[in-house]
Amino acid sequence: MASWLEALDRRAQLRAKAGLTRRLRPRGATDPVVDLAGNDYLGLAHHPAVTVAATEALRTYGLGATGSRLVRGSTDLHSALERALADWFGATRALVYSSGYLANLGAVRALVRPRTLLVSDAHNHASLIDGCRLSGAQTVVTPHADVAAVEEALAAAPGRPAVVVTESVFSVDGDLAPLARLHEVARRHGALLLVDDAHAVGVRGPGGAGAVVEAGLAGAPDVVITATLSKALGGAGGVVAGPAELIRHLVETGRTFIYDTALPPAVAAGVLAAVELARDGDALREELADRAAAAVRHLGRAGLDVSTPAAAVVSVTAPGPEAAAAWAADCLDWGVAVGCFRPPSTPDTRSRLRLTVNVGVPRAEFDRALDVIVECAP
Amino acid sequence: MASWLEALDRRAQLRAKAGLTRRLRPRGATDPVVDLAGNDYLGLAHHPAVTVAATEALRTYGLGATGSRLVRGSTDLHSALERALADWFGATRALVYSSGYLANLGAVRALVRPRTLLVSDAHNHASLIDGCRLSGAQTVVTPHADVAAVEEALAAAPGRPAVVVTESVFSVDGDLAPLARLHEVARRHGALLLVDDAHAVGVRGPGGAGAVVEAGLAGAPDVVITATLSKALGGAGGVVAGPAELIRHLVETGRTFIYDTALPPAVAAGVLAAVELARDGDALREELADRAAAAVRHLGRAGLDVSTPAAAVVSVTAPGPEAAAAWAADCLDWGVAVGCFRPPSTPDTRSRLRLTVNVGVPRAEFDRALDVIVECAP
Repeated sequence: MASWLEALDRRAQLRAKAGLTRRLRPRGATDPVVDLAGNDYLGLAHHPAVTVAATEALRTYGLGATGSRLVRGSTDLHSALERALADWFGATRALVYSSGYLANLGAVRALVRPRTLLVSDAHNHASLIDGCRLSGAQTVVTPHADVAAVEEALAAAPGRPAVVVTESVFSVDGDLAPLARLHEVARRHGALLLVDDAHAVGVRGPGGAGAVVEAGLAGAPDVVITATLSKALGGAGGVVAGPAELIRHLVETGRTFIYDTALPPAVAAGVLAAVELARDGDALREELADRAAAAVRHLGRAGLDVSTPAAAVVSVTAPGPEAAAAWAADCLDWGVAVGCFRPPSTPDTRSRLRLTVNVGVPRAEFDRALDVIVECAP
Repeated sequence: MASWLEALDRRAQLRAKAGLTRRLRPRGATDPVVDLAGNDYLGLAHHPAVTVAATEALRTYGLGATGSRLVRGSTDLHSALERALADWFGATRALVYSSGYLANLGAVRALVRPRTLLVSDAHNHASLIDGCRLSGAQTVVTPHADVAAVEEALAAAPGRPAVVVTESVFSVDGDLAPLARLHEVARRHGALLLVDDAHAVGVRGPGGAGAVVEAGLAGAPDVVITATLSKALGGAGGVVAGPAELIRHLVETGRTFIYDTALPPAVAAGVLAAVELARDGDALREELADRAAAAVRHLGRAGLDVSTPAAAVVSVTAPGPEAAAAWAADCLDWGVAVGCFRPPSTPDTRSRLRLTVNVGVPRAEFDRALDVIVECAP
């Protein structure tokens, strides 16, 4: 009976030896740290319009949604948010989930029919990978951002339904998938394209509508968008956007939609306010681009191996998992929070610092944070 | 390219012909309907202590958690909530997720080792079923609440690690699993027992601590509890509670924990307030038990086939899916919201009305709602 606990403990010791221990470091309300780790890219989580809308909904709707969307969980706030998101993304309809993880699980499964082949990018997020697994469909993992490999996989399965699964801006290195070319290849082979736009929504495209809109794929009948409401929109939850037939299918058959308590109405209200701010947020996006460029320049000049950010995520190579953890801990001692991505949270064996460009951070503190990162480099 | 949309449409037509169409019916803030469908069993979603705590946290922490728990998403509110839940459940530690669905996916997978056998009750929730699928482990589905079948499945796999997976109070019919006997059998075979206590927490057990505590299994080293924070606690999110080794394992390796944005701090604050109210809620639980008994008496006297509720869920058999939908729609026309469970949301082919006993509903309205249900019966 105790053997399973001993087995868990042995594995924890092995992880510790490999420098892969992870610890929760709770922050307080008045956290003095400069945040270059969170995903509140546009600083909307604290925007008064967002918190006031959420507060008002708390007062009128209460805290929880009290049920699944099909039973008691749907409010007019959810509907308004879905209309706003569909309009923003140029999609016919949108469906809100309680998390982006559940949205991805639902979207992948909904696109799978008998004999479907899934073609999944090697850097895809865990929720997309789990979606492929859960669907039971055959999955070919193609090298990162490799359009030729995708085409080869599709060509090797003629006559079969197929779905190309990718992020737009990838969560780890912040680079952009070749969406237009992926779509061209997918369409040539009659395949669908599923794009997780989580890190691009609010940040890229006209009015921050995301990388799918930017690539000219808005409303395409063979493109499905998923995204989170918890990054540039400063809230929580996820969304699937696409043709009306797909959304109806998800409402009537999608397990992670049907059997899950709805997003709290207050969160829906806050995110709805955030969508309006994000659509009107060109100045925020200009500032964000300027900071991303400054980060690349500053860290590159110091001889660090920096990614070219397509949005708000900047990746800096670390010598190894322990060095990465020590580097991040040093930064934190200097009052700067940065992400530390080590295996298995990375798509390869490389450990990284993962910086995010959050325009809610005052510019002078952001610039100082870059100095700290350089100063603490191993 | 359009063929997939046509295929989705054809399937929608088939569902429509079988009476299985589902529609979202959004409610407003001032919904006049008597709610016998939602899962806010203790009426805490609207409790001032809950909404005030959430409002205060919105003001100080902003709307979203801004990141995953290991990056920026952990606040002292999450920690306080986890301590409170562990203390309530008599568990060493607890870990909060953004949804109960993700908690179940994470818990099942964490318990699976090479060669593990999962023994899963036929009435288990979709999230437990998906957890079994996603884990990749061999899964034996045993007839509902059948301890002998569980023992047989375990005996047929001697020497293999095994996990018995069950709900405590089942979501569809509201009946209680034989937890003590399941644990006895599991322990005899060196198996673990995973209990989804979602519908019992706040409602059963001393201080509403749930059915696992009630069964005398609190703190057992071979028992793992999962639950939602979105039913009797009136909020959103999920929790896994158990030995410290398990929680450490989930923090360091659990995909649905690591790669998901944290529960919004304001929701954590509201649920924390709800835990205190629920622990102190014996009067609410007495009223709930009294109403559940009244529902059984009233509906039974009218000749309806009513389940014996172990907590706040009452199931009433309907002649078929279309009759069930028509019955629920009639009730709604009379101002009473009831759940309507049809295949594939039911573990068998039987369609049901699913009533919930929510003590937040004024008693006179509750009693009138029972009259309406009888009056509208097919």
